[in-house]
Amino acid sequence: MTDMPRAVILLSGGLDSATVAAVARSEGFELHCMSFDYGQRHRRELESAAKVANALGAARHLVISAPGLGDIGGSALTTDSIAVPKGRSAAEMETGKIPPTYVPARNTIFLSYALAWAEALGAADIFIGVNAVDYSGYPDCRPEFIEAFGRLANLAVAAAVEGRMSIKIHTPLINLTKSGIIRLGASLGVDYSLTWSCYSPNTDGRPCGACDSCILRAKGFREAGRIDPQREGGRTA
Amino acid sequence: MTDMPRAVILLSGGLDSATVAAVARSEGFELHCMSFDYGQRHRRELESAAKVANALGAARHLVISAPGLGDIGGSALTTDSIAVPKGRSAAEMETGKIPPTYVPARNTIFLSYALAWAEALGAADIFIGVNAVDYSGYPDCRPEFIEAFGRLANLAVAAAVEGRMSIKIHTPLINLTKSGIIRLGASLGVDYSLTWSCYSPNTDGRPCGACDSCILRAKGFREAGRIDPQREGGRTA
Repeated sequence: MTDMPRAVILLSGGLDSATVAAVARSEGFELHCMSFDYGQRHRRELESAAKVANALGAARHLVISAPGLGDIGGSALTTDSIAVPKGRSAAEMETGKIPPTYVPARNTIFLSYALAWAEALGAADIFIGVNAVDYSGYPDCRPEFIEAFGRLANLAVAAAVEGRMSIKIHTPLINLTKSGIIRLGASLGVDYSLTWSCYSPNTDGRPCGACDSCILRAKGFREAGRIDPQREGGRTA
Repeated sequence: MTDMPRAVILLSGGLDSATVAAVARSEGFELHCMSFDYGQRHRRELESAAKVANALGAARHLVISAPGLGDIGGSALTTDSIAVPKGRSAAEMETGKIPPTYVPARNTIFLSYALAWAEALGAADIFIGVNAVDYSGYPDCRPEFIEAFGRLANLAVAAAVEGRMSIKIHTPLINLTKSGIIRLGASLGVDYSLTWSCYSPNTDGRPCGACDSCILRAKGFREAGRIDPQREGGRTA
């Protein structure tokens, strides 16, 4: 138990959420990191989340078991029957068309669980690594979605309705490019070798290098003028 | 596959959600019922949900496994370490104080899953049995919460953002008394013997008769001038 205010951090294990967690730590919050096991193909990211939480000195890392999310369907990330797109350029991602890796209402569900935990912990602050610049076009990464969730949150939970806390959704990356995110994280000492981005790893455990998430990651490191430590280290699984 | 529009019904197995499902059916919707297994003490309600879905001819009954909700804590419904209040009068429930059976952000989480399934099914309509008259004082049963969720929903999912559907949250019970709900359900042929309300059943499987939910149910049947078929039938588990 510390005197630091508590924050709930949605931590996927990717580079965005690792950066967000480092930002929250730099702002003086005690980190309560939350990840989800929802039957995603790239469950490898959960190991990365645990390493990132540990490296950042999180007070707790809670992995929420939510297998029901995989039963709902509708996404290439939770079923083998829909292919993960490969080899799209960043320009193709920017057409505004939402790709099949979109998981229906995923950030709504994740933020709802974060809200529940925040209330149980007495934490008024929730951090999420959404980004509306270098992203795949998911609607639940946009500022208007986050603002609507913040309004909802303060009507939803007893602690807010009774005036004991005002929930704030922090999105420190929302207006940054991927290279800007990497520069920010590097300045805060984030070890990106611990993070995982690939949606569809090769059978040898390496990132595929061709899914949207790998392509955005590579573009980010290139534009930041840095070498991705995951590539440098070779096989990471 | 029918020509009827699809609706997602949040079905707990209690009398409110059974009534809501009957309302949706009477309005011409094909019923896709969703229940949650989240480690609640009163898991008996899931058997009731299955019976109600079957009796109403639902196209599907999906039970979402969400054990992580129990890990978050903060509620008497998901832990033995917090007692379920017994013997409160309806007047005591109306003090505005939120009781320990409140589950942090539960309806936010449930509606988020319903939204995900609605998008995957192509269903624009979601039904939930919230009620702001004879209720336990939970903040996420109030009209302002539901309105905020509806706004969020239409910013959250691809199908809404791309203009393919406009999500509507239906709350046909929100302004009814418990007796009004029972009269409505009876007029639609709901078999209330199939439903389950008790938060904290006795070891012999009977409803305790003393938790808020049992007390509100008994008050509702009394004021509707009806006999609760669950009591008439005796032991129901």
